[in-house]
Amino acid sequence: MSVTAAQGFRAAGVAAGLKPSGRPDVAIVVNDGPADAAAGVFTRNRVQAAPVLWTRQVLTGGRLRAVVLNSGGANACTGPAGFADTHTTAERVAAEIGIGAGEVAVCSTGLIGVPLPMDLLLPGVVEAVAALSASGGGAAAEAIRTTDTVAKEAVRHSREGGSVVTVGGMGKGAAMLAPSLATMLVVVTTDAVADAATLDRVVREACRTTFERVDSDGCLSTNDTVLLLASGASERALPEAELTELVTAVCEDLASQMLGDAEGSTKTISITVTGAASEADALEVGRAIARNNLLKCALYGKDPNWGRVLAAIGTTAAAFEPDQLDVAMNGVQVCRAGAPGESRDLVDLSGREISIVADLHAGSAEVVVRTNDLTDGYVYENSAYST
Amino acid sequence: MSVTAAQGFRAAGVAAGLKPSGRPDVAIVVNDGPADAAAGVFTRNRVQAAPVLWTRQVLTGGRLRAVVLNSGGANACTGPAGFADTHTTAERVAAEIGIGAGEVAVCSTGLIGVPLPMDLLLPGVVEAVAALSASGGGAAAEAIRTTDTVAKEAVRHSREGGSVVTVGGMGKGAAMLAPSLATMLVVVTTDAVADAATLDRVVREACRTTFERVDSDGCLSTNDTVLLLASGASERALPEAELTELVTAVCEDLASQMLGDAEGSTKTISITVTGAASEADALEVGRAIARNNLLKCALYGKDPNWGRVLAAIGTTAAAFEPDQLDVAMNGVQVCRAGAPGESRDLVDLSGREISIVADLHAGSAEVVVRTNDLTDGYVYENSAYST
Repeated sequence: MSVTAAQGFRAAGVAAGLKPSGRPDVAIVVNDGPADAAAGVFTRNRVQAAPVLWTRQVLTGGRLRAVVLNSGGANACTGPAGFADTHTTAERVAAEIGIGAGEVAVCSTGLIGVPLPMDLLLPGVVEAVAALSASGGGAAAEAIRTTDTVAKEAVRHSREGGSVVTVGGMGKGAAMLAPSLATMLVVVTTDAVADAATLDRVVREACRTTFERVDSDGCLSTNDTVLLLASGASERALPEAELTELVTAVCEDLASQMLGDAEGSTKTISITVTGAASEADALEVGRAIARNNLLKCALYGKDPNWGRVLAAIGTTAAAFEPDQLDVAMNGVQVCRAGAPGESRDLVDLSGREISIVADLHAGSAEVVVRTNDLTDGYVYENSAYST
Repeated sequence: MSVTAAQGFRAAGVAAGLKPSGRPDVAIVVNDGPADAAAGVFTRNRVQAAPVLWTRQVLTGGRLRAVVLNSGGANACTGPAGFADTHTTAERVAAEIGIGAGEVAVCSTGLIGVPLPMDLLLPGVVEAVAALSASGGGAAAEAIRTTDTVAKEAVRHSREGGSVVTVGGMGKGAAMLAPSLATMLVVVTTDAVADAATLDRVVREACRTTFERVDSDGCLSTNDTVLLLASGASERALPEAELTELVTAVCEDLASQMLGDAEGSTKTISITVTGAASEADALEVGRAIARNNLLKCALYGKDPNWGRVLAAIGTTAAAFEPDQLDVAMNGVQVCRAGAPGESRDLVDLSGREISIVADLHAGSAEVVVRTNDLTDGYVYENSAYST
């Protein structure tokens, strides 16, 4: 269901031949209205792919009628020709649907620095428009996969009497700020009535505590995009807090699916930084732990090497005293006051889920950052990259 | 020869049983003078091991008579008891040699968060003092190895007429600011006449362009230490620039050996950032490239994935325009003006040495940062860590 769970949306996914495997690689999501408000969040990488440059520009108007997405090529670092390709793609979608190119967002994912095969992509776009349907969400989610082993979809509802408001989404990749491999793309749709300014606040807040706190491998993509489209087809507006809650729940669900499916990973690691002087401090410490390759290798090997947690904390500028740091792993307080606590032999790291709690004893701020382990599978997938 | 190449130094390395393997694990270097000037550079990690805290304190006087080093345990995150252990170790060395504990530096490397087995270490120290000799440099270099597959030594000379000044050094690990596994320890000795203030400037400058620009895996240790000791036994003072050149050459040699022996690595990667607006910008960009796991995996797979170089540059705050970036890999200009240049098929990455040149076209500053690839061997060694 995903992006077609909410009323007012159609979608499709087809195989245009961009992927050598012949798997689906072009998706389209169309908002049939009555409204067409939209907002988005993009990568903070300063090197931005052509589709990101295009879609940021389109979204300044706060309206979208359609989103076209392709896997099999990122169209990043492709120069003016790459931007022209994005423009041409949006124009073809617009012509087929009967709207303006300025109402079409474009998202791409795949290898950087290679032009898109437009001779394959444009016929694929035509085919996808012809295949659009109110039950096409699943096919669209399939078509945006790269190394994802499964399609990722999520849906939430708000019911009040006989009236239902729906938020649905699809995603690929892992992590907004620091995706594993190439890119994270997410499209979330809702039939709530909401204006663009509201959607903008909602999508930013939803990303802040979900995708932006997932840091699978510390690498920031050129193509990351999260879009939120509202059709208004339910004819009901939700209080902004409730809409934020629903969208956040969908984003959280997708983020968890991404972590569970991260390339070559065997562990999903939740890092809670508590007792921080500020949220910024907690986030800096959480990211430093999440990005420590030595720790991530140790956790892959089921080794509760908490010293590497302290070594990671020590690289930050956060407020803390080294001799006040506490660390627990899967509930065992292995480090107290910067020194050994309970025996590391008590820590069981055999399951997929690992919890690390680091208490800085410097205040009351708390943040949760999630990551994966670093494995030979990750190395293999990323040294033999192809979509 | 290494630390005993210069006149006035004796050294030894023995097996005290700290390593389960029974390999040598305790080393001592003694400066017999006539002078005893010394200086050091330490990790920037805020979580510092007991031996680092001790040795920083000792070095405030600018004098060292001896250095005791052990592998088989980092004595980091071990609390007040760990500091007492370091103090006791220095006292035992001092008593055996007949000097003061405040003249003894201590260095440790190995697992974090585990107390040192003092019942093994102290007898080892006594044995090492008894074994001190003017030809003991090689044995000392052996005893500080952890996962190093070979001992690392370097020597340089300055000859003028019949007079020779020597600088020699030993090291273990990889990289000052961002070592692979646990720690980098380096001891450099010279028989030049030099005061502590001069040595301090010399060792900082030598580290700045060598160890501090090696970034094997982005992880900053709790124990990194570089010490420079001068005996004055040659009775000759060198111009500071010449002494700096010799010490830098020894550090450069050791840094190259570390990169060549980095855990699980198959590539030594030299990243030249040129055309930067400032040295700080160039260094930030160089480190961002050196720490990009996706790129490091690609290079392991001999894949000239230059898009990942641009994606890494884009995460920095350095001055540049995305559409002006040039990247060459092993001499092939694969990216021009942020877009594809020569064919990536022309790039031969089959050898161990890889050169990446990134031109920001934003100024005239240039920096070289060196790193290694990310391999399944690295993952294996660090997920099954033991010294």
